[in-house]
Amino acid sequence: MSKTLDLPAPPLQVSHWFNTPGPLSLEALRGRVVALHAFQMLCPGCVAHGLPQATRMHEAFPPDQLAVIGLHSVFEHHEVMQPTAALQAFIHEYRLAFPIGIDQPDPQGGAVPLTMRTLGLRGTPSLVLLDKQGRIRLHHFGRADDLRVGALIGQLIAEPGEDESVHCDDDGCRLPELRHA
Amino acid sequence: MSKTLDLPAPPLQVSHWFNTPGPLSLEALRGRVVALHAFQMLCPGCVAHGLPQATRMHEAFPPDQLAVIGLHSVFEHHEVMQPTAALQAFIHEYRLAFPIGIDQPDPQGGAVPLTMRTLGLRGTPSLVLLDKQGRIRLHHFGRADDLRVGALIGQLIAEPGEDESVHCDDDGCRLPELRHA
Amino acid sequence: MSKTLDLPAPPLQVSHWFNTPGPLSLEALRGRVVALHAFQMLCPGCVAHGLPQATRMHEAFPPDQLAVIGLHSVFEHHEVMQPTAALQAFIHEYRLAFPIGIDQPDPQGGAVPLTMRTLGLRGTPSLVLLDKQGRIRLHHFGRADDLRVGALIGQLIAEPGEDESVHCDDDGCRLPELRHA
Amino acid sequence: MSKTLDLPAPPLQVSHWFNTPGPLSLEALRGRVVALHAFQMLCPGCVAHGLPQATRMHEAFPPDQLAVIGLHSVFEHHEVMQPTAALQAFIHEYRLAFPIGIDQPDPQGGAVPLTMRTLGLRGTPSLVLLDKQGRIRLHHFGRADDLRVGALIGQLIAEPGEDESVHCDDDGCRLPELRHA
Repeated sequence: MSKTLDLPAPPLQVSHWFNTPGPLSLEALRGRVVALHAFQMLCPGCVAHGLPQATRMHEAFPPDQLAVIGLHSVFEHHEVMQPTAALQAFIHEYRLAFPIGIDQPDPQGGAVPLTMRTLGLRGTPSLVLLDKQGRIRLHHFGRADDLRVGALIGQLIAEPGEDESVHCDDDGCRLPELRHA
Repeated sequence: MSKTLDLPAPPLQVSHWFNTPGPLSLEALRGRVVALHAFQMLCPGCVAHGLPQATRMHEAFPPDQLAVIGLHSVFEHHEVMQPTAALQAFIHEYRLAFPIGIDQPDPQGGAVPLTMRTLGLRGTPSLVLLDKQGRIRLHHFGRADDLRVGALIGQLIAEPGEDESVHCDDDGCRLPELRHA
Repeated sequence: MSKTLDLPAPPLQVSHWFNTPGPLSLEALRGRVVALHAFQMLCPGCVAHGLPQATRMHEAFPPDQLAVIGLHSVFEHHEVMQPTAALQAFIHEYRLAFPIGIDQPDPQGGAVPLTMRTLGLRGTPSLVLLDKQGRIRLHHFGRADDLRVGALIGQLIAEPGEDESVHCDDDGCRLPELRHA
Repeated sequence: MSKTLDLPAPPLQVSHWFNTPGPLSLEALRGRVVALHAFQMLCPGCVAHGLPQATRMHEAFPPDQLAVIGLHSVFEHHEVMQPTAALQAFIHEYRLAFPIGIDQPDPQGGAVPLTMRTLGLRGTPSLVLLDKQGRIRLHHFGRADDLRVGALIGQLIAEPGEDESVHCDDDGCRLPELRHA
């Protein structure tokens, strides 16, 4: 799998949300592990592998441990996939039950939507895993292996969150990590 | 699998063709076995099973023995799936190489398109096999087994076509079968 | 798939039969299409592909149209796979329901059993299809595609058997084909 | 998946080892997570699911983090599966690369071998996961989901081992945990 980055994830830029009572923000999800699945509804690999894996994740882990979020990051066939009604029908037919956001189209008219660009995604499907402190720990393009992804999620869930983190050790005591550093 | 009907298939009513230089007609295909795959681009069973089987058929049999035809029979989410550009993007992304027609929408505004209605299809995916004389020999809704479908195709290919059919036997000699009976 | 041979199949040489009240002979099966599946119980490709396909064939076609026969053709690890009890346990655990014969070991001590040698099989799994007249129409080593194999079976089932074959045509009348030619 | 037990695992009782220069003991593996895969060579679920999962585990995790061990726990068809040569041929044909032990047959002549009995396994395939301190953390019969199993392995790898464990906290300082308690 792709290397981890350990950088803080940039905020989601989403124009419309499905399957959630209100907009989601990565900041509000601090303390939970987050799995971001970037997809396009007309991407065969997303339909065959990425989205079924997202559904398996959503069913395998309690929501207070792992937040699964779909991100519809359209970078081709915009006229067909961009309309909200198209994604709505797709979500309905494929019975996707986790929150899904439409990645904000580029206001300058570029093909790549904003979250996809700031996350540096190479295409769809992409899987990005964030730890409890919002740092990118996996940044993977293409099909991802369940066993390896599961192991990383298990490790991230086992890590202490911000509040529980030990600030003092043999070296001394540090300031709490700054969220927006 | 579903029972065969042995009825002559009604003509295709198609508003737009892809992957073919001109419109196809069942009449012009007499003498070849025909596999009609009715699908919708947002139908999960079509994407997972029906269309891959159509592609396997298209690759396994020479075109002068079996004509594989896709039929986009939209009966739900019309606003999303009906536009020609949507199907065009879908065909491109899924690399479908056989001829595909858009089933003619009902001019009265009904949900079910015209060919789907006259063929009496129950939903998508549906597979209809026609023999060399244009008669319906399989009328199947849902997932179809490769081994059984293959056997029927092999049998239909082995049957004599119209021109080769014996018109005389112990009972006497008959007029050639009327095409439009 | 492999080319067809059109040669008459040599007789089966079997030391022990399972799942059948008495020994089978290809001669007694004339008039039916025959599928011979050569396998070894410790051959991964046989367990993963060949034997499941044999089971699907056995379930998809009526026994008076297609006779499915397994042939345990051991050419390696003889001390482990040759004992009758080993194959019996294997057949029981994998719930194989079609007739299976143990290919007769070479009395000269050669590694390759007799039927495998006379059939010229290249290894396991192998699939050999015989037409109603006992001629080899498919001789295939390795994984075989359900759709193509199904088509050939359908074609062979559709062919006239010996008794029904037309002996007179525009060219004249021929002697019935000799069985042991 | 099955509930965890948190009990210390009983020692392995093995009559013969494959794929390892010397006998393995759970005690010597302390500090590493251990995956025990109990199987029988004639068990279809083991061949189709259990052993491929064991191989995936063996390939996905470094050996100093996860030790994958196969356990041939024969409780039926003993005369066929018990001989060492039979398992050796099986391991060779299926290219199993991780250490595999033959579960010690019951000297009293009982059907169930000794490790299987002391571990309380319900059948094959069974997966038992031990943490770094040798405690049973998963005890699962049948097919196990890669994503969930992966998450547990990731969590167990992330846990501190014996040596790193903190012995002092706000409640005071404890004696190191007794290994044979």
